[in-house]
Amino acid sequence: MAKEKKAPRPKAQTPKGFRDYFGAEVTERAEMLQTIAGVYHRYGFDALESAAVETVEALGKFLPDVDRPNEGVFAWQEAGEGEGEAKPGDWLALRYDLTAPLARVYAQHRNDLPLPYRRYAMGPVWRNEKPGPGRYRQFYQCDADTVGAASVAADAEICAMLADTLEEVGIPRGDYLVRVNNRKVLNGVLECMGLADEDQRDAVLRTIDKFDKVGEAGVRELLGKGRLDASGAYIDGVGLSEAQAEPVVAFLTSGRLEASETLANLRAAIGVSQVGAEGVAELEEIAALLEAQGYGADRIVIDPSVVRGLGYYTGPVFEAELTFEILDEKGRKRQFGSVAGGGRYDDLVKRFTGQAVPATGVSIGVDRLLAALREKGRIGGKVPGPVVVTVMDRERMADYQAMVAELRNAGIRAEVYLGNPKNFGNQLKYADKRESPAAVIEGADEKARGVVQIKDLILGAKLAQDASLEEWKERPSQYEVPRKDLVAKVREILDLHA
Amino acid sequence: MAKEKKAPRPKAQTPKGFRDYFGAEVTERAEMLQTIAGVYHRYGFDALESAAVETVEALGKFLPDVDRPNEGVFAWQEAGEGEGEAKPGDWLALRYDLTAPLARVYAQHRNDLPLPYRRYAMGPVWRNEKPGPGRYRQFYQCDADTVGAASVAADAEICAMLADTLEEVGIPRGDYLVRVNNRKVLNGVLECMGLADEDQRDAVLRTIDKFDKVGEAGVRELLGKGRLDASGAYIDGVGLSEAQAEPVVAFLTSGRLEASETLANLRAAIGVSQVGAEGVAELEEIAALLEAQGYGADRIVIDPSVVRGLGYYTGPVFEAELTFEILDEKGRKRQFGSVAGGGRYDDLVKRFTGQAVPATGVSIGVDRLLAALREKGRIGGKVPGPVVVTVMDRERMADYQAMVAELRNAGIRAEVYLGNPKNFGNQLKYADKRESPAAVIEGADEKARGVVQIKDLILGAKLAQDASLEEWKERPSQYEVPRKDLVAKVREILDLHA
Repeated sequence: MAKEKKAPRPKAQTPKGFRDYFGAEVTERAEMLQTIAGVYHRYGFDALESAAVETVEALGKFLPDVDRPNEGVFAWQEAGEGEGEAKPGDWLALRYDLTAPLARVYAQHRNDLPLPYRRYAMGPVWRNEKPGPGRYRQFYQCDADTVGAASVAADAEICAMLADTLEEVGIPRGDYLVRVNNRKVLNGVLECMGLADEDQRDAVLRTIDKFDKVGEAGVRELLGKGRLDASGAYIDGVGLSEAQAEPVVAFLTSGRLEASETLANLRAAIGVSQVGAEGVAELEEIAALLEAQGYGADRIVIDPSVVRGLGYYTGPVFEAELTFEILDEKGRKRQFGSVAGGGRYDDLVKRFTGQAVPATGVSIGVDRLLAALREKGRIGGKVPGPVVVTVMDRERMADYQAMVAELRNAGIRAEVYLGNPKNFGNQLKYADKRESPAAVIEGADEKARGVVQIKDLILGAKLAQDASLEEWKERPSQYEVPRKDLVAKVREILDLHA
Repeated sequence: MAKEKKAPRPKAQTPKGFRDYFGAEVTERAEMLQTIAGVYHRYGFDALESAAVETVEALGKFLPDVDRPNEGVFAWQEAGEGEGEAKPGDWLALRYDLTAPLARVYAQHRNDLPLPYRRYAMGPVWRNEKPGPGRYRQFYQCDADTVGAASVAADAEICAMLADTLEEVGIPRGDYLVRVNNRKVLNGVLECMGLADEDQRDAVLRTIDKFDKVGEAGVRELLGKGRLDASGAYIDGVGLSEAQAEPVVAFLTSGRLEASETLANLRAAIGVSQVGAEGVAELEEIAALLEAQGYGADRIVIDPSVVRGLGYYTGPVFEAELTFEILDEKGRKRQFGSVAGGGRYDDLVKRFTGQAVPATGVSIGVDRLLAALREKGRIGGKVPGPVVVTVMDRERMADYQAMVAELRNAGIRAEVYLGNPKNFGNQLKYADKRESPAAVIEGADEKARGVVQIKDLILGAKLAQDASLEEWKERPSQYEVPRKDLVAKVREILDLHA
């Protein structure tokens, strides 16, 4: 007989740029999303969940070429329809954010939705990008948007909600700042400089975006001839004269004060620009609305250095940054930085309907926010595992199952050891790996005498680490109690370590 | 100048077989998942969240051919790597269930995971199938599995947990039944019948699976010559003689009694089959374990008619069905049916590691369970919308924002009307669409007098529907209160309708 060819075993690996989340990583995120949803709900926002999959046509930004979808999204073509698949199938793709699906949803369901439509959405998005350390191709976003409201009151509301949200998830006041700017003011400054060239305008915007990193002197260099960066590489400048660069620097350094001062500085920086004046007036209105609700400069400030990329924003833009310092991978102090951003975009729905629909919204980077809370020690403490009922006699599994049922009915997380019970040491090792607070033991002898042994594993571990022999003897970490007192004694131990 | 060619507008539509979920549809599901996670946690199961995307190699079941991935999954090929994309990219796919990813996760991380490993997972899965009415290509699953436990105590535990879960999400005892069977018993019966032909064995299993629908007489026909079904179509039979069919029928009709009786009947049905005897012994052990924990025949029964498809199950199989009747689309009464199922599968991890790893688990069809709760009126009641503060004077937006801030700080869901305030009727129509319980009005006159008007919209709607003119006059649904009493009066109205 011919030898059977064995198929090679598949590799047990996540695809490149994807990862698995275990235990508290999952539940902490779920809790944070729930808290954020609570704030959004209180502000009148309604939940929306669209599918992960959209037509490439509806997503719009990335269009597949003939053979293969463009970079940026994960896309594929549906099987064709009809005789010999005469009609080619649609291109489908995984959503890359939650805003493009919102525009599609609003255009599709606009006759049934309230106007304005406040909605929140939370869930994973996918980017077909080169993964890097800490950069994944699937990550969570948590968005709130108001569609159909032209008033900047909608923008102000979202800034206030963002501040409330950060506090509610555990970032105390003083550890964050919501920074607000307006693209119209930026455009006014560029107009005032007499920059007609689109590429040069974009280059100036990108330079402004670097202000936080390189400071005033750095921006002056980058607007002019260029700059040697920290790594020794020479970065080409935009090529402006010092006189041309001056309004940009004046503009950039005019912020983070009381709103009234910043606004006065901005008014000077935009000169006679019409669009600039409109932008300043909008910021003024936002500042007034926020002040009326008690949001002072300790929570929300006007900050001209906020740019938010070169994307689709048309008016107010905002960003939430965490202001406390952390140590980076090289042990240097740096600010934690941005965890959320957004702004006004007025053209996304127009793609579908031809009618301009004003919209504004914010997106919270949930994974970064979780990392910040871990950094501050506000989450990620040890979560105790279940109480483990050990198996001394495999014929009496029913007795042990009855014990865990009692514990669970009392609301205590508990499980029976389900591995091979032969080696008792393995059972205790298992309890250790599960970070169990207590183990329950009932051998034939205990059964006969109507008692159980309960090991306090947290105390036991502590004693094993710190205690002298005398202490060990004085403070036993194992108790014998009547079987009927099982639940009470376990609860006593749990309360002791709570 | 040549006319500019306009690109056609994209269609605002979900891809075929996908849908959007709004408001309570989203939050009710989130609450259910949280409740289920709570039960799973109490049983010692840990959360796991893997990415939506896996390599096709790891998913295993569906392999892409050269040009196009097979039906069944959504799959695509990564861009190649190296010069001229010399190395072809991996095939990736959206997961079609949560079990295949678990097998990959366990094989990948087995050195870091406890053994046995109890995990739960919840989230969407994707099937590239023809969509139909109520059948979507993305839907939620909610799974719990124990990997690495050979003992049927693990299976019993999952059955108990399933019963607890159904009760905790709001299905009262008596309205559900967890039915347990064992594939080894089925195999024993087939052995006892002397059926050597694999196809014929599968055909018998499929027939057993139809017992719930066609009853004893129907099964006899299908095991024999065939049967005319309700639609008038003739269904070919398996072609057994009556004597051959007898053990199957005896087996099928031996269940849903007290466990001891069912077990005695099964023992008779399997004759001298070794594997059958093993299966009966396992069921016996499961029954004893469940009885010790107080799960009687009102919650969990041994039922020989449970098959759970022809898939990968190797031992105990279970299914949860809701036993209450609903009206189908034609107004006929029928049982709601299955909402969860699972069983023991011992070969999934072996694909990766070469070592057999025993595993057992359950998957709850969350969307069906939600539909059942809606059917019973346990969820889906009207959720009140936010209190709407109307805008009488657009210059005083700050005042209105201050009002909603006060309401929200008191924990009351509230929003300012952010549309164009010119037409006041539109504002009240908006409040109506939002299902607001109350609207707040403060015009120039009220402002001057230091008062606000509060409309009780729920009472207002009721009066508009039912009341005579006298009643209307007697029970005003609009109140004028001092501005400082805004929160107190709104709360009073909310409490009235709570």
